[in-house]
Amino acid sequence: MRIPALIDPHVHMREPGATHKEDWASGTAAALVGGFTQVLAMPNTDPPVVDRVSLEKAEQLAVMNARCDFSLYLGAGPNNLARTAELAGKTAGLKLYLDQTYGPLRLDAMSLWQAHFRTWPKDRPLVAHAEGRTLAAAILMAALVDRPLHLAHVATREEILLVRAAKQRGFKVTCEVTPHHLFLTSEDLTGGWGEVRPRLGTQADVDALWAHLAVIDCFATDHAPHTAAEKASAESPPGFPGLETALPLFLTAVHEGRLTLDDVLTRMGDNVRRIFNIPAQPESWVKVDLDKKHTLSAQGMHTKAGWTPFEGWDVHGAVREVMLRGKTVFRDGQVLAQPGYGQRIR
Amino acid sequence: MRIPALIDPHVHMREPGATHKEDWASGTAAALVGGFTQVLAMPNTDPPVVDRVSLEKAEQLAVMNARCDFSLYLGAGPNNLARTAELAGKTAGLKLYLDQTYGPLRLDAMSLWQAHFRTWPKDRPLVAHAEGRTLAAAILMAALVDRPLHLAHVATREEILLVRAAKQRGFKVTCEVTPHHLFLTSEDLTGGWGEVRPRLGTQADVDALWAHLAVIDCFATDHAPHTAAEKASAESPPGFPGLETALPLFLTAVHEGRLTLDDVLTRMGDNVRRIFNIPAQPESWVKVDLDKKHTLSAQGMHTKAGWTPFEGWDVHGAVREVMLRGKTVFRDGQVLAQPGYGQRIR
Repeated sequence: MRIPALIDPHVHMREPGATHKEDWASGTAAALVGGFTQVLAMPNTDPPVVDRVSLEKAEQLAVMNARCDFSLYLGAGPNNLARTAELAGKTAGLKLYLDQTYGPLRLDAMSLWQAHFRTWPKDRPLVAHAEGRTLAAAILMAALVDRPLHLAHVATREEILLVRAAKQRGFKVTCEVTPHHLFLTSEDLTGGWGEVRPRLGTQADVDALWAHLAVIDCFATDHAPHTAAEKASAESPPGFPGLETALPLFLTAVHEGRLTLDDVLTRMGDNVRRIFNIPAQPESWVKVDLDKKHTLSAQGMHTKAGWTPFEGWDVHGAVREVMLRGKTVFRDGQVLAQPGYGQRIR
Repeated sequence: MRIPALIDPHVHMREPGATHKEDWASGTAAALVGGFTQVLAMPNTDPPVVDRVSLEKAEQLAVMNARCDFSLYLGAGPNNLARTAELAGKTAGLKLYLDQTYGPLRLDAMSLWQAHFRTWPKDRPLVAHAEGRTLAAAILMAALVDRPLHLAHVATREEILLVRAAKQRGFKVTCEVTPHHLFLTSEDLTGGWGEVRPRLGTQADVDALWAHLAVIDCFATDHAPHTAAEKASAESPPGFPGLETALPLFLTAVHEGRLTLDDVLTRMGDNVRRIFNIPAQPESWVKVDLDKKHTLSAQGMHTKAGWTPFEGWDVHGAVREVMLRGKTVFRDGQVLAQPGYGQRIR
């Protein structure tokens, strides 16, 4: 059957700076295989995307190499407060790292994030990586300047209950949850293989996320590839690849009756479109085989990561074909779009 | 001149459990010397005050030994959620320790503090020790259950700006600041002598607190005595004595034109009365000598701490006499009230 093409509001393409982990060509090939025709890419590259120069450099690489459509986030830093607003119209949104993450963009001073919350245009997306009580603090901060806030990768029972309470009280918050926080617990992966931020939770956390599906606006992969060698090392960097496994995992959950296909498509399409103000693409769709049984494996995946936390998982549902702006970009295992076919979303 | 008798909403009397640091007789002697005739005592004693049994035990000690009037806080713990509300009417309020402090009462799980915020009667005082982003999270939590919140010992520029912003947006928050956070920076005391929670700030923090006097509802000593030997040790516990130095320090600031006498009396009297719903005491006042120059010294103080962070400070202004419910309880250096003269406030 045909479903609308998917959008992933949270991916790391690793280019510029760490193209041994991923680059725009490999990362967007993985996106197409996963049924995504639009991706919003995070700014913690090397150099990080924090100003006009770094934005244009990263954009140039994306324009040349992306196989699907894209937009880039701007990172909120300690020194770019005065220049973010003028770039807002060209970006996916502003990203604030308020807790420990991969890369140099963490903002420690609350007064600094308050300033960013105030300066960034209210009608442009603002996304925070904020865990636990930092998440609560970020919601307050957004309320104090009366602006919407999108919360990245909500991962715990405590967090989803907080987001629910905030929504019930009329705070302008939206949130996303990753497949790995919905399908894995901290018991499932050993050592560095399980390193990810936010950390994998307990079964109670996972259960709470599923129990509050109505509170979850988006599913986002937080596709954050590192190589198998890096993950096996003593200093395993946090992050999992996710673009090629997300849809099969969710279709399997549909097959098992844990949610409906509409629940999935809303959270991987319409809601993302609305929250991030992303126009629909003409002549773009995904053909899926809902009954296809297969086994997930890093073998044959297009990400450079070379591993997946879902290795060996039996799933129901596969992507057969992807049409992007009138062109078949993926069919029967073959990525047909060339690097450069992808366009900027804005 | 005569001023109204003062109230301190934040003291640690150390009894039961650590009477070598302070007890009700010594601590309330220090209170009277400082011009305070009412004190609200914190629950992190040993055992902590968390239920009817521990409250009644601590109250009994206070009834027997206090020289001034008092009320005891109940501590919010992991296991007393179901039983706090029934005790509310007999307590100063509910105290939540949300950040690192002295004693075992810290609450880590946000869901637990949210439950306490919801359960404790809205018309009874609720006080949080919450620093930095935890303070922001606590303000949000109070808003989510639509209840007032009093913030203990606000100490940094970031915190006072946040409280200001929250008040401006109509959040029901009040706050207190200690003399040590107004008169000392982290440069002023060395090693364990400077250990206190919240930590002493920078000059910029101190300047911001003074600049936002209008945001500060109460001055509270957070009188938290430890002995000089303990403070000199490698494992110095956090806390300063403060009851005998607060008023002279503030009168000196009045003398220097940094604030008015009315600013002081409002924050050490009327505002505390209003926030904590404490009735006025009949025939109670303090006679102060605004021009008296003297030097602060632990020698002759009534606290058992045996030291003060303000040792050697030259001040303007002294307490001459204290009248409590028609009886002279302090005059010319002599504490005249006996242990047991103090009454419960509720």
